[in-house]
Amino acid sequence: MLLDQLETPVTVVDLDVLERNIENMARLARENGVALRPMIKTHKSPFIAKKQMEAGAVGVLAATLDEAEEMARAGISDVTIAYPLIGVGQRERLLRLAARVKLTLSVDSIEAVQAFSAVFGPAAAAGRPPVDVLIIVDSGGRRLGVAPEDAALLGRAVHAAPGLRLAGVATHPGHVYGCSSPEQVEHVAAQETGAVVAAARRLRAAGFTVDTVAVGSTPTARFAARAEGITEIRPGNYVFYDAIQTALGAAAAEDCSLRVLGTVLSRPTPHTAVIDVGSKMLSSDRGAHGLELVRGYGMVVGHPGVVIERVSEELAVLTLPGDDALDIGDRVQIIPNHACTAANLVDVLVGVRQGVVERTIPVTARRRIRLSEDASADA
Amino acid sequence: MLLDQLETPVTVVDLDVLERNIENMARLARENGVALRPMIKTHKSPFIAKKQMEAGAVGVLAATLDEAEEMARAGISDVTIAYPLIGVGQRERLLRLAARVKLTLSVDSIEAVQAFSAVFGPAAAAGRPPVDVLIIVDSGGRRLGVAPEDAALLGRAVHAAPGLRLAGVATHPGHVYGCSSPEQVEHVAAQETGAVVAAARRLRAAGFTVDTVAVGSTPTARFAARAEGITEIRPGNYVFYDAIQTALGAAAAEDCSLRVLGTVLSRPTPHTAVIDVGSKMLSSDRGAHGLELVRGYGMVVGHPGVVIERVSEELAVLTLPGDDALDIGDRVQIIPNHACTAANLVDVLVGVRQGVVERTIPVTARRRIRLSEDASADA
Repeated sequence: MLLDQLETPVTVVDLDVLERNIENMARLARENGVALRPMIKTHKSPFIAKKQMEAGAVGVLAATLDEAEEMARAGISDVTIAYPLIGVGQRERLLRLAARVKLTLSVDSIEAVQAFSAVFGPAAAAGRPPVDVLIIVDSGGRRLGVAPEDAALLGRAVHAAPGLRLAGVATHPGHVYGCSSPEQVEHVAAQETGAVVAAARRLRAAGFTVDTVAVGSTPTARFAARAEGITEIRPGNYVFYDAIQTALGAAAAEDCSLRVLGTVLSRPTPHTAVIDVGSKMLSSDRGAHGLELVRGYGMVVGHPGVVIERVSEELAVLTLPGDDALDIGDRVQIIPNHACTAANLVDVLVGVRQGVVERTIPVTARRRIRLSEDASADA
Repeated sequence: MLLDQLETPVTVVDLDVLERNIENMARLARENGVALRPMIKTHKSPFIAKKQMEAGAVGVLAATLDEAEEMARAGISDVTIAYPLIGVGQRERLLRLAARVKLTLSVDSIEAVQAFSAVFGPAAAAGRPPVDVLIIVDSGGRRLGVAPEDAALLGRAVHAAPGLRLAGVATHPGHVYGCSSPEQVEHVAAQETGAVVAAARRLRAAGFTVDTVAVGSTPTARFAARAEGITEIRPGNYVFYDAIQTALGAAAAEDCSLRVLGTVLSRPTPHTAVIDVGSKMLSSDRGAHGLELVRGYGMVVGHPGVVIERVSEELAVLTLPGDDALDIGDRVQIIPNHACTAANLVDVLVGVRQGVVERTIPVTARRRIRLSEDASADA
């Protein structure tokens, strides 16, 4: 089956480009002697995660318990959860995960330390090994994380908490998606590595062993991998790249492996076209982390003057420059602004190679709502 | 099981409010002698669609073939497809749908008429009844649709096309979501009804019978239902309402039946809180149709001063006024900006009544990507 025979809208992944992206990032880590732990929220797909592991990743980073559990089911044996996911009903899920994989948790407050210790303290008392914990450090993203100078305080709390073992520090420089040039990206990368290295120094000065000094984002990866004192990088988006990454200079259009295919449904005016791809395929992200970085809602491949001006749920309105012709029935390929949110909107991605459909890639780690009884029954 | 025992993040629907919303819209239609055909892209759920049918809806309006097929599977026998969904692979799906339900299509170009006639012309020649077609009229939304004065031209094309029967006209006033006051909404409603009534007049003057004069959006429904010459209203969002609808004066917060529940994970600064609800639960919509109407990414119920300032994929950063306290572990209820895109992000909604969990509501008509072979095998 050929690419052109796929019904639209559909989200496809060029497998050659995907594999090249995976290998390039693995090589960057290898050549710089740092571990690679991909953030898999980007694709939520065991198929792609396993490709990353085969290329040399040490494990994966997950944003949700659904993702962590799905990776465990796929046989990945080393999973870090990026956020302090406390709250009702997490207890049993965390215990099951820890029994199944090498689990690492992340905290940025005394309350989270207490919550996780309440889960794993009793297990440790019963003879199970403690669970590794990373301290989340704020490197300028102003989201989660403690200041580097507060790392030792929290480190002491982790160290003292039954069932937990202090393993290191980590940060995600979310503010990199507010950059408007590659130079600014390099500056953010310096903040990123500076913050965790400073936090690690504080912890070591306080007498703690710090095994892991982890950073990560796709745009900063090439700087962070080379920085002194970093042990682990955790980029995610690089498997697909997207319009935002090209705006940040982290990738070229030909590195973007994920595309949404659409069909022109209408040409209501000489300068507009309506396609069957809307925010329920592209998402309405203009940037990551709520930031606006790009024009319109994606890049139309081969039509540089065309702007995806407005998205409704299942339609988008394109504006065409005077010399660009798109007829009703024509097909378009779109590089979304944000591939991570686009991939989350479909049940499967379609893997293609040189224009031929090769396989489907199920996106199985999407949010799965369940009542806690179901969760228990699922044990 | 109680609401407070649900794991977060989770999307819940208050069934009392849902049923009240469904009944109120049904009564509006009944009292004004117009048919109600709800747009079901809002919920993509057979359970809710059947409640709408039981309350008196004549059928449903679908935005995608996946939605139309899922409604047919659920036993709903009258389905209109809102957009001219032409393109590869639609032929067999449309034929199967037409064999199963009273199907109505929508067109706004000669090309779409030809494409649909190519599907249904041969079937009609073989003795099957023609398929009803509505002409989409632009009432100011500048998306799909012909100008009212061009309706007769397109009407003649439909009339002449084998396999198709001209059934009427329809419009969706998407630009209502650009309004900033209830007065402006009333103005858009006048444009909406004016455009289709004018188009119907042109068609009748050209000698055609016009059975259906359809309009629809939730904010304009109460005006459109009372307008002269309208036969059908097609609101969708009203089952849930959301922050955008409250900004437009179409609903109050207590009419908003869909809420996303989250937990405070971190209090990184005195004036910020981080919750476990991000754009993969709320969407990053600031308005419908790409318009920005509201502050932040949703309304935090009971915390009027709190703003959902930034959303990442699985987290949001709230800013708190000085006197608002939210502690780590506290739970929040969020009315999303746009309930239609929020509901599309989960596999099930959790139906609650007076704080008690009553049932799950599967969201089964979400986008389902498949290779055409699968589609054929599925016949």
